[in-house]
Amino acid sequence: MGALDEGHYDLKLGGSVELDFEQEPETIAIEDAVKVLLQSLGEDINREGLRKTPFRVAKALREGTRGYKQKVKDIIQGALFPEAGVENRVGQAGGSGGLVLVRDLDLYSYCESCLLPFQVKCHVGYIPSGQRVVGLSKLSRVADIFAKRLQDPQRLANEICVAFQHGIKPTGVAVVLQCSHIHFPNFESPFLDSNHQRWVKVLVSSGSGSFEKQDSPMWVDFLGLLRYRDIDLDSICSRTSVKDSWCPSRSFCKIEPSRSGMVTAVASILRSLGQDPCRKELVGTPNHFVRWVTNFKDSNLEMELSEFTRIPLRTIGRSMNIKEHIRSEVNLSLWSLCEHHLLPFYGLVHIGYISDEELNPKGKSVLQSIVHFHGFKLQVQERLTRQIAETVAPLLGGDVMVVVEANHTCMISRGIEKFGSNTATIAVLGRFSNDPAARTKFLQGIPSCSL
Amino acid sequence: MGALDEGHYDLKLGGSVELDFEQEPETIAIEDAVKVLLQSLGEDINREGLRKTPFRVAKALREGTRGYKQKVKDIIQGALFPEAGVENRVGQAGGSGGLVLVRDLDLYSYCESCLLPFQVKCHVGYIPSGQRVVGLSKLSRVADIFAKRLQDPQRLANEICVAFQHGIKPTGVAVVLQCSHIHFPNFESPFLDSNHQRWVKVLVSSGSGSFEKQDSPMWVDFLGLLRYRDIDLDSICSRTSVKDSWCPSRSFCKIEPSRSGMVTAVASILRSLGQDPCRKELVGTPNHFVRWVTNFKDSNLEMELSEFTRIPLRTIGRSMNIKEHIRSEVNLSLWSLCEHHLLPFYGLVHIGYISDEELNPKGKSVLQSIVHFHGFKLQVQERLTRQIAETVAPLLGGDVMVVVEANHTCMISRGIEKFGSNTATIAVLGRFSNDPAARTKFLQGIPSCSL
Repeated sequence: MGALDEGHYDLKLGGSVELDFEQEPETIAIEDAVKVLLQSLGEDINREGLRKTPFRVAKALREGTRGYKQKVKDIIQGALFPEAGVENRVGQAGGSGGLVLVRDLDLYSYCESCLLPFQVKCHVGYIPSGQRVVGLSKLSRVADIFAKRLQDPQRLANEICVAFQHGIKPTGVAVVLQCSHIHFPNFESPFLDSNHQRWVKVLVSSGSGSFEKQDSPMWVDFLGLLRYRDIDLDSICSRTSVKDSWCPSRSFCKIEPSRSGMVTAVASILRSLGQDPCRKELVGTPNHFVRWVTNFKDSNLEMELSEFTRIPLRTIGRSMNIKEHIRSEVNLSLWSLCEHHLLPFYGLVHIGYISDEELNPKGKSVLQSIVHFHGFKLQVQERLTRQIAETVAPLLGGDVMVVVEANHTCMISRGIEKFGSNTATIAVLGRFSNDPAARTKFLQGIPSCSL
Repeated sequence: MGALDEGHYDLKLGGSVELDFEQEPETIAIEDAVKVLLQSLGEDINREGLRKTPFRVAKALREGTRGYKQKVKDIIQGALFPEAGVENRVGQAGGSGGLVLVRDLDLYSYCESCLLPFQVKCHVGYIPSGQRVVGLSKLSRVADIFAKRLQDPQRLANEICVAFQHGIKPTGVAVVLQCSHIHFPNFESPFLDSNHQRWVKVLVSSGSGSFEKQDSPMWVDFLGLLRYRDIDLDSICSRTSVKDSWCPSRSFCKIEPSRSGMVTAVASILRSLGQDPCRKELVGTPNHFVRWVTNFKDSNLEMELSEFTRIPLRTIGRSMNIKEHIRSEVNLSLWSLCEHHLLPFYGLVHIGYISDEELNPKGKSVLQSIVHFHGFKLQVQERLTRQIAETVAPLLGGDVMVVVEANHTCMISRGIEKFGSNTATIAVLGRFSNDPAARTKFLQGIPSCSL
C-alpha cells in the first residue's frame, strides 16, 4: 500500500495525513507487535515483501476499527428530510408509516474473537414517523460505523438497530444481517479434510419499536421484501444462540507457553486499537489469533510432502501405443495467507498436464497435498502458482499448466473494498509454454462453478 | 450528506478538511451553477430537500473526478515486489511471464458526453517481467484513477493500459471493460416506450506489449480466464466503433435558446472540474446534460395524465356475485431523478389492489403513465411511492398497496460505492393497512426477476 492511495482527501493534503498516521504511537505500537509475530513465525522482517507488512497491517486494523471514533449523529444530522405522509386512518405511506428498506449492502467487519474480517450482507429498514425520512446513503454509512469495530454478528445487528432508533426516532427499525466467517480447514491434517466447509454462515436480526416483537406483522412485510435471499423467520438464529455457532477459532485448542510473546503482542494490538484486552469478549482473542496465524508455520506438512512425493503418480509401464492427452485435475482447494497483509486468501487450483498415462488413484490427493504445502505459508499468489507448478512438474512429466483462482480478503477488508473481485494467475512449464492450443484446451476444461 | 461522513481521515481532522472543501472556489462555483439549474427547472432552492443539493452535487462531481489530481506513480511506487520467475526455456511463471489477472472490479466513471455516471466491470491483467510483480490492490487503485475522470469507455481502457505499461514495465498489459450507461426512455412519449432497453452496454479492450495485437495468443489465455462472463474476441467492440454506439444523449435534439443560462452553468461546472469546455470531447456536454435534466420538467406528462385518469379503469357494472380478490399489476417501469444528488434512480413499481373487478385492457398502461408522471420529477423514493398510491387509489377502489424497488445511482457513484444495493419502499392505503395477510399475499405475487 503506497502512500497517498487511500483517502479521498489525500490529493489536497499532499500526503501529510498519511505521514501523521505513520508517526502516531498507536500505529507504531501495532507495527512493533506485528514484527514480533512475523519473527516468531521465523520470517525475516527485512525481506522486501514483508518490510512494509507491519505498516499495512496497522493501517488495515486502524481503518477497520475507525467506527469507534465515528458518531452516528454526525452522519444523520442534516440528512433528515421533511416528507409528507398520509393520515393514519387512511394508511401508511411516505413520512408516516411507509416502510423503507435498503437491501444488499456489502460490508465487512472484524471478528472480536479472532481478529479476522468477516463479510456482511446487510438489510436495514425503518418505518418513518413524524413526517420525516433519512437520506438513503445514511443507512449504509451508519451501519458501517458499527461494522468497523470488533464485532460479533448479533451485537452488530443490535447496535445498528439501536443507533437508528435513537438517531431517526422512527416507528420501528429492523436489521437483518447475513454474515460469513472464513473457516479454515483442520490445520492438523488438512489432507483429510476435503469436504470442509469454507464458510461459517449465520443469519441474525434485530428489531426495535414496531419490530421489537419477532412475531410482529411488520416483520412479515420486511421479510416479504427480502424474498429470494434464503431468508425467513425460521432461518434467523435465535438471538442468544449465535455465539456458539460462529467464530471457528473458539474451538482451537490451547497454545503452547512458548508462544506467550506472540500472545502479548496481539494484546498490545488490541490496546492500540483502544480496546481493553481484558474485557470479556476479547479475553481469548490473542490466543485465537496466535493459534490461527501459527498454523502457517507449525503444520507438519513438510514431512508429509516429502513422503507423498515419493509415491509414483502415474501408472508404471509407459506404453508407446497410448496417445498423449491433455489431462487435468481441477478444483483443488486452496488456503493461504497474504504476506503483505497477514490476511487469508482462498480459492481453487487447477492443474493441467500432458501425458499418455492417467494419474493413479492416489494422484489427486497428492496434488491436493502439494497445494496445501505451498499454501500454508505467508504467500503471494504469483509465487504460490509458480511453486505448485515447479513441484508437480517432475511428478507429471514436465509439461504442466497451473491456474490459481483466489479471493483475497485484503481486497475487501481495506480501503478499496472490492467485493466480488478475484484474481487468476497462470504458470506454464514445458510444452504448455509454447502451445496456445494446449493452454486453451485446458482452460476450457475448468468447470464454471469454480469460484 | 452530513459533514464528517466521507473520508477515512475525517475522524482525526475534526472536520476541517470538509470545511476547507466547502470554502474552495471550485466548490462554490459548482454550487452556484447547480442553483441556476434548479431554478431553471422551476424549483425552490431553499426547499429543505434541495437546500444542500448544490453542495452534494459539487462534492460528488469533485470526488468523481479526483483522478485528474492523482498520480499512478504514487500508487505503484513501493508496491513493486521482487518475485522469482522461471527461466524462459522452461516456461513462464511468477515474476517472469506468469499471467496475473484481477477480475470483476466494480468501478464507476463519469460519461464525458452527458456527465452521468456509468458502471464499469473491469478486468485487468499483465504479464510480469524483470522478476517483479505489483501488489494486487494496485490494479484496482490505478484503474480507479482513470475511472474518476470524465471518460468514454475506450479511452478509459487505453489509459489504464498505458498507465500499467509505464508503471510496471511488464511484458504486456491487457484491459477488458464491460461498461453500462443508463438509457433513459424517449422523454417525448415514455408511454409508448415500454420495451425500451434500460442500459447501453459496450465491451471494450486495450492491450500493450505482448497484448498489442488483438490476435496474440496471450489474448486467448486472458479471455479463457474470463469465461462465463459473456466475453469473447468477437463480442469486443472494434476500437473505433464504440463512440457511435455509446452515450444516448448524443442523439438528443437541440435545445431551445431559452436554456442558454443552463448551458452556461454546466460549462462553468466543467471549468470548475479543471476541464476546458471547448475541448472537442466536451463541446456538446453542456447541451446534453441540460437536455437530459430538463426532461424532468419539460415533459407534457401533466396533460396526458389528466386525460388518462378520466378513463374508467375497471369494468363497469359491478356485480355482487363476483368475489373480491387481491389483484396486482407488477413490474411497471420506473425512471426518476434523485433530488438530493440530481442523479437518476430507476427500477420497478408493483401495485396491488382489492377488487371484484379486473382492470380493463387500458388499465396497465394508465398505471404505467401514473408511475412516469410521478417519476419524471425531482423526487425521493418515499414520496414517489406515496404519490403513486394516492393517485391510483381512487381509480382502483381505495384499497391499494404500492411497492417501489429501485437502484439509486447516488448509492454507487459517490463515497459509499455500494454496488448491488437497492431500496424498497411500501405505501398502503385502505384495507391493506390493517390486513397483514393481504399484504403478504401481494408481496408473494411479485416476480423474482424483478430488479
